[in-house]
Amino acid sequence: MLSDIEISRQSPCLPVTLLAERLGIDPAHLSPQGHHMAKLDPALLGQGKPRAGKLVLVSAITPTPLGEGKTVTTIGLAMGLNKLGESCIATLRQPSLGPVFGVKGGAAGGGFAQVVPMEAMNLHLTGDFHAISAAHNLAAAALDARLFHERRLGDQFTATTGLARLEIDPARILWPRTLDINDRALRHITVGLGGELDGVPRADSFVITAASELMAILALARDLRDLRARIGRIQLALNDQGEPITAEQLEVAGAMTVLLKEALKPTLMQTTEQTPVLVHAGPFANIAHGNSSVIADRLALHLADYVVTEAGFGSDMGLEKFFNIKCRQSGLAADAVVLVATVRGLKANSGQVNLIPGQPLPASLQQEDLPTLQLGCANLVWHIHNARRYGVPVVVALNRFPSDSEAELEMVLAAARAAGAEAALSQAFTQGGAGATELARAVVMACQRTKPPVGESQRLYPDTLPLAAKLATLVECGYGGRGILLSEQAKAQLAALSAAGWDHLPVCIAKTPLSLSHNPSLKGVPTDFELPIRSLTLCAGAGFVYALTGPVMTMPGLGTLPAYRHIDIDESGDIVGLS
Amino acid sequence: MLSDIEISRQSPCLPVTLLAERLGIDPAHLSPQGHHMAKLDPALLGQGKPRAGKLVLVSAITPTPLGEGKTVTTIGLAMGLNKLGESCIATLRQPSLGPVFGVKGGAAGGGFAQVVPMEAMNLHLTGDFHAISAAHNLAAAALDARLFHERRLGDQFTATTGLARLEIDPARILWPRTLDINDRALRHITVGLGGELDGVPRADSFVITAASELMAILALARDLRDLRARIGRIQLALNDQGEPITAEQLEVAGAMTVLLKEALKPTLMQTTEQTPVLVHAGPFANIAHGNSSVIADRLALHLADYVVTEAGFGSDMGLEKFFNIKCRQSGLAADAVVLVATVRGLKANSGQVNLIPGQPLPASLQQEDLPTLQLGCANLVWHIHNARRYGVPVVVALNRFPSDSEAELEMVLAAARAAGAEAALSQAFTQGGAGATELARAVVMACQRTKPPVGESQRLYPDTLPLAAKLATLVECGYGGRGILLSEQAKAQLAALSAAGWDHLPVCIAKTPLSLSHNPSLKGVPTDFELPIRSLTLCAGAGFVYALTGPVMTMPGLGTLPAYRHIDIDESGDIVGLS
Repeated sequence: MLSDIEISRQSPCLPVTLLAERLGIDPAHLSPQGHHMAKLDPALLGQGKPRAGKLVLVSAITPTPLGEGKTVTTIGLAMGLNKLGESCIATLRQPSLGPVFGVKGGAAGGGFAQVVPMEAMNLHLTGDFHAISAAHNLAAAALDARLFHERRLGDQFTATTGLARLEIDPARILWPRTLDINDRALRHITVGLGGELDGVPRADSFVITAASELMAILALARDLRDLRARIGRIQLALNDQGEPITAEQLEVAGAMTVLLKEALKPTLMQTTEQTPVLVHAGPFANIAHGNSSVIADRLALHLADYVVTEAGFGSDMGLEKFFNIKCRQSGLAADAVVLVATVRGLKANSGQVNLIPGQPLPASLQQEDLPTLQLGCANLVWHIHNARRYGVPVVVALNRFPSDSEAELEMVLAAARAAGAEAALSQAFTQGGAGATELARAVVMACQRTKPPVGESQRLYPDTLPLAAKLATLVECGYGGRGILLSEQAKAQLAALSAAGWDHLPVCIAKTPLSLSHNPSLKGVPTDFELPIRSLTLCAGAGFVYALTGPVMTMPGLGTLPAYRHIDIDESGDIVGLS
Repeated sequence: MLSDIEISRQSPCLPVTLLAERLGIDPAHLSPQGHHMAKLDPALLGQGKPRAGKLVLVSAITPTPLGEGKTVTTIGLAMGLNKLGESCIATLRQPSLGPVFGVKGGAAGGGFAQVVPMEAMNLHLTGDFHAISAAHNLAAAALDARLFHERRLGDQFTATTGLARLEIDPARILWPRTLDINDRALRHITVGLGGELDGVPRADSFVITAASELMAILALARDLRDLRARIGRIQLALNDQGEPITAEQLEVAGAMTVLLKEALKPTLMQTTEQTPVLVHAGPFANIAHGNSSVIADRLALHLADYVVTEAGFGSDMGLEKFFNIKCRQSGLAADAVVLVATVRGLKANSGQVNLIPGQPLPASLQQEDLPTLQLGCANLVWHIHNARRYGVPVVVALNRFPSDSEAELEMVLAAARAAGAEAALSQAFTQGGAGATELARAVVMACQRTKPPVGESQRLYPDTLPLAAKLATLVECGYGGRGILLSEQAKAQLAALSAAGWDHLPVCIAKTPLSLSHNPSLKGVPTDFELPIRSLTLCAGAGFVYALTGPVMTMPGLGTLPAYRHIDIDESGDIVGLS
């Protein structure tokens, strides 16, 4: 089979103006970025007759290091729907540069189910992530500069500047700095060293851009005005009295918004089969909600009959956050859920298989092993029940691999159907959309079954429930655990958040994606666990409170043999080494 | 008069496809970025009949805090040439985001001589600076990751990875990190703190993106292949034996080049009068050469009869580096030099006027003061002689201000002519191209007088002169000083550079732009000085050695009342506060 970059290059790519014309987009709302990409202006939402398309969410079983092919299936399903004659747009998160150069060497799907041009998708795209970094770091610089000038000018600060003192507490600055890179050396740093003109020394850190609250804000904002208001609400630091200092108070919210004005527009691209794709935002799926943007979904629903979007990790993570955070804020509802599973991934979820990085795959994964697969199917069944809890039909997409036996495939399909889901094979990686028509048909049937969305029925908890009760509900109903175990710090933080009037926000739990619990070694369907909650953090701009169950890596590192070593230009100036 | 942003918004902007069509650009070489900007592929250099235009370099008298309007005059001259019926393209450096939010609130010219859309020019443009930051920081992360993994794995490193040890000396890492922001707190930092999995602790620093060697490399590269080769030569660190470690050895040069592939293409824009502009790169004019890119100049010379380009600071700085670094590497030559002067700027160069930030301007600058102006004219005469040294005709552009008297204007024009220059008033700020036709006519006449360029005659020194002799020649002939005063460190570094075979490179002196000497308080035409040279730094990728005469600010800070406070979106979503 050809390499990803070879397939990408030989796929006939429509001029983006033609792609937009087919979607009925007025050129006034299209800002071309080269010949094959364009920024789409959300202003078009007010124009023309909306299609009011069906929204299909793609989630997955508990992920494994093997990779279940969720992005490939998302792209393949969109192409499969096209093959059936349905108008369809996929909405995807933008890949981060960090993993491209660190581990993966690319993240635009794979095989015959890719977004093209894959080089653009993997490298900068239209600059949104860099714009987020710039806006984020402007706020950080503004904060440190204000701290510095207030200290340097002392009593004279207000007389000299006409500004009120903010009295920023350097020990309680809540806003890190950010870069879209894997750089472990920036995880813990000291800034402001050098001398009395070089700032105020303090401990600081960098997070990767996907972990910036601005990324979550961009993904959740309804429009430019909402973006501006959310940025104004961001709490950057506490003052000496422990009161929050917002971006509005620092007078930096307007400039941050201006830096994000173009980034608020999703990027129109296409798949290897010319199915339109909107790429926009890429928030983490642990400390943030792990979904592409509200604006992209709304634009796509306006322009097509089917919109296929993808959420991060398994259904306990990105799907739960899709319903309880994204849909709650956007007012949108899903018409169907697709759960991606693989035979290998289910075996790895059985608890019987020991995957060791760098070692050959265990025999069970390379040949038929029905007993192990049977155990693993419990995980699939759990995710089906979990998704059905939100009142939507579920379709299992079984992503077929060459090592799968017919009996194994049949076992998974039967287990899915027995649990109340539709089920179909997907072979998009090797066959493109033609390999996903069976899946597409199942999705169309599922969407026809949907009752009209009824808002609150697609939520685990109402806004009015206090934060602690929301956390407990999420663990009991969303993870299948026994409840929460709050640290003393978390208890104090919950009381403070409640007192400050933030109880109405949804919660976002950051836990391992590799288990339904907080413990990655608990495979399958653990139930006998209490989820330890160490601390809580308010994201006033994004509009949720996230809870940490343990350390979360917000700045990855480069491994010993990083992917960048093989990325280069060849003799003709073409890029090599992305996949 | 209208504000800059109002003038920008009401200027009729041609679709970039039409602008390109007028220049005879094949659409295959044009990558639209929105409707009013496009990336221009250097591949077009091999296509069609080149115009072999005349190259006009815009420099200035010794700059003052008043601002002499060099960018306004550059844009105005290009528009003035258009008014005369000549085809003309201006090539400009891209503004840095740092000063936009720090001091100026914008840097795209001003009044009726602006690049439009000015919001795009001032904010991200097409993302080149962010791409440079990303490529720069990838190398920094790669360096720290390799240091970390070699230490962590110890003797097992090679057995585990198959890679030879680089033995990076953490105390001699030559490559900082970079961001396009004014952030004093990042000037001196400690990275790698936190714990044994979070990198190797060491002192580090951030520089602003314009100070990255990659910025100078982008500005000097001939094409993608040359870019790749230059990046490979960058010396990132020394090993434990004091030997250089290059980006090639770290295997990161290919990935860095890939990140810069689109940034290598200049951005086509236009002025308020639809004169084409190529915006590309923006290296510092102290530790780098302070000129826009070789590729942009070559593309513009291919497409137009006149190309107007701008160099940083006064003729002792950007102009000297234009001839001795940029032209030496590119093989291009200038046909004429324009020196921008103002009555106020010359008075401020007299040594008789004391400008205090935040205080009202001295009376001499607000009313006629011929004796002070007479003293200041010596600075203009020096710059004329300095520019004529390179064998090109000189035209003084006297940028008129409302406070200038007729007698003052006449005195400057007469002094310029007496020193062997053409001279003309420029009123581009208030009148656009119509205010610069007299200047444009003088430039056309000057270009007609030019003898064919003769390469070495436009250099102060030959390649073959040793580095120390180049420095001495530059100070004696380029600054009018008595010679150089080398620190012990500088002597040792010169000996080491010579021994390592770098004597063939040109030199780049980083000194204050506010005096011809290294001492900003020596106004007018100081001659009795020796230039102290503290240290030397090899830029093996950019292809020069820079000399520090004192501390150079490579990371600016935000002031007490930064410009970002007034930048915002208004009710209709338009940007306000840029100027």
